[in-house]
Amino acid sequence: MSDLNLRIPGPVPLPEDVLEVGGRQMINHRGPEFADIINRMTTNFKTVLGTQGRAYFLTASGTGSMEAAIVNTLSPGDRILSISIGSFGNRFGDIAEAFGVEVTRIEFEWGKAADPERVREEIRSMQDCAAVVVTHNESSTGVMNPIDDLSRVIHDESDALVLVDAVSSAAGVPLPMDDWGLDVVGTASQKSWVAPPGIAMVAMSDRAWKAHENSKIPKYYFDIDQYEKFLQMGQPPFTPALSIIYALDHSLQAIIDEGIEEVLIRHAARAQQTRDGAKRIGLELFPDQSIASDTVTAIRVPDDIDGKVLVSHARDVYNVELGGGQEKLAGKIIRIGHMGWVLPEHIDESIDAVEKTLADLRA
Amino acid sequence: MSDLNLRIPGPVPLPEDVLEVGGRQMINHRGPEFADIINRMTTNFKTVLGTQGRAYFLTASGTGSMEAAIVNTLSPGDRILSISIGSFGNRFGDIAEAFGVEVTRIEFEWGKAADPERVREEIRSMQDCAAVVVTHNESSTGVMNPIDDLSRVIHDESDALVLVDAVSSAAGVPLPMDDWGLDVVGTASQKSWVAPPGIAMVAMSDRAWKAHENSKIPKYYFDIDQYEKFLQMGQPPFTPALSIIYALDHSLQAIIDEGIEEVLIRHAARAQQTRDGAKRIGLELFPDQSIASDTVTAIRVPDDIDGKVLVSHARDVYNVELGGGQEKLAGKIIRIGHMGWVLPEHIDESIDAVEKTLADLRA
Repeated sequence: MSDLNLRIPGPVPLPEDVLEVGGRQMINHRGPEFADIINRMTTNFKTVLGTQGRAYFLTASGTGSMEAAIVNTLSPGDRILSISIGSFGNRFGDIAEAFGVEVTRIEFEWGKAADPERVREEIRSMQDCAAVVVTHNESSTGVMNPIDDLSRVIHDESDALVLVDAVSSAAGVPLPMDDWGLDVVGTASQKSWVAPPGIAMVAMSDRAWKAHENSKIPKYYFDIDQYEKFLQMGQPPFTPALSIIYALDHSLQAIIDEGIEEVLIRHAARAQQTRDGAKRIGLELFPDQSIASDTVTAIRVPDDIDGKVLVSHARDVYNVELGGGQEKLAGKIIRIGHMGWVLPEHIDESIDAVEKTLADLRA
Repeated sequence: MSDLNLRIPGPVPLPEDVLEVGGRQMINHRGPEFADIINRMTTNFKTVLGTQGRAYFLTASGTGSMEAAIVNTLSPGDRILSISIGSFGNRFGDIAEAFGVEVTRIEFEWGKAADPERVREEIRSMQDCAAVVVTHNESSTGVMNPIDDLSRVIHDESDALVLVDAVSSAAGVPLPMDDWGLDVVGTASQKSWVAPPGIAMVAMSDRAWKAHENSKIPKYYFDIDQYEKFLQMGQPPFTPALSIIYALDHSLQAIIDEGIEEVLIRHAARAQQTRDGAKRIGLELFPDQSIASDTVTAIRVPDDIDGKVLVSHARDVYNVELGGGQEKLAGKIIRIGHMGWVLPEHIDESIDAVEKTLADLRA
């Protein structure tokens, strides 16, 4: 491959057909062609998530979907529980705090998943809990949280809404929203959905919609009321990122056409290939294999190697762009993204690049 | 021309080179290539606006730039003046109200520009006024406000910040931000900037930046602090709409290369061509010519014609997509956008389509 092999955990590289569709000419975003697109996208997105709830497309980064989850369901002074296993978990709590919500935080060691029984204890100890915010796939550590178990515990112990940051999980791993009792799922176009960044996607249960009617956090751009009102007319409330909408519509349809089960099986296979490859070249996974993410693999950097040098060497010499470690993991792990459109050779090439880089750096 | 002639006032149609650039492969948004792009864009955007202030690119619709202007400079309970001459002027006031700001509204008749002397009286009658929010180009009525005169009056009479919705004006008409004493200018990629929708652009004066330090409206996604902090590293705080960034970077450079003066002269010429064309076929401009916008022309629909039928007939039969009237102007005006990439034949074809449609409807 002559092109850069982009293996950061999003934005994901895109196949030619998606790039082509994204390069289509502009249309009237208040005309019938757009209505067809947004209606088809809404249906397909809900099908992938297995939800009978509501779904919206916002022009924003993935963080916009997390903000939309918070501002549309909560009020200032509400108490919530924030479960964090890494950088993005912390962010979800930070957003709630920024809007005047009282956040109780449970933080698990980076590299571990959240323990449902500790969450149970914490919820029992809280006087009331309006919502629990939790990251499904923590891409900073390559760990997948057991969202089904966590959701069950939360519903057992409280009436709290379950707000899930599924930015780097949805469409790559199983996430049957209604079956698992999730109230808001937020995700983003540039991850397993195989589109450029720019569209935040939000799905809401009926419970979340009712909470929204009483939510008093001030909001305008992310006020889901406007998206709902305009969706009834097949329109967006504000001029959306049409190019990204085109690409995402195309890719959503491709997921439906391939079959959701097949897409998930493919993701699991590439993840296993990545983990096996890392072990084959003598490296250790950062998290335990049982909780390792199927969309991004975090690998320990050997003690004699600087992870930042590894990443830049692999890029400069072998044309593979790996993810580095963030915050306290800077230099200590590398991350290989395998969500969305990933061929087996993308993974082989990445593992080869790491192996050769290690040899170069030790030579 | 076989393609649809898209003449709504944004999103604007894009030339082939812009669409091609927008279809480029994804890159690491935290790598050196992105840093080059964002730094070049920031410089070019500031050059076009004639400002020494700060500038940021947010992944959002144009409304996001208006929300960013409000939430980054004001606090709940602040009193502001909202000057409205149409639908978008009302929206700017609505956003402020949504965030707990006390909004005094002056509304001028749709089709008129704001009168600086009435604004002077209103500001004098207010006990204090933290900011004035005003639309530069009201695309719902095709009227351009005298922002320079309004800004002078506001500064004469108060310490209020001048927050300008320049979504459909900037890069199409003169808007020397620093010379005119504007504190926040918000605009959007899909207008005169010749890019797809998806990037909101915000420029801030030093005064606005100081106000931002004391601003207490809750915010996260639109908190300009994060954009500033990451811009220092040549990065975005959140994964941006890369495809739109590519296109906007390309088009910003094209504006600089063509010369800002030349771009503005070209816009004025297309606007005059449109107004002349409308008169030639016996139609009347909606606003007085002296305040008619140079980015979108609003034309009265003759009494014997339904404007909605005119718009759909022109699209279906003549392949020209005109803008219709909004809210109280629905069916009463049509609008022809002429911002961004517009060739003389685009305008001729539009006027021809209107003329033929009128003949068809009267036959």
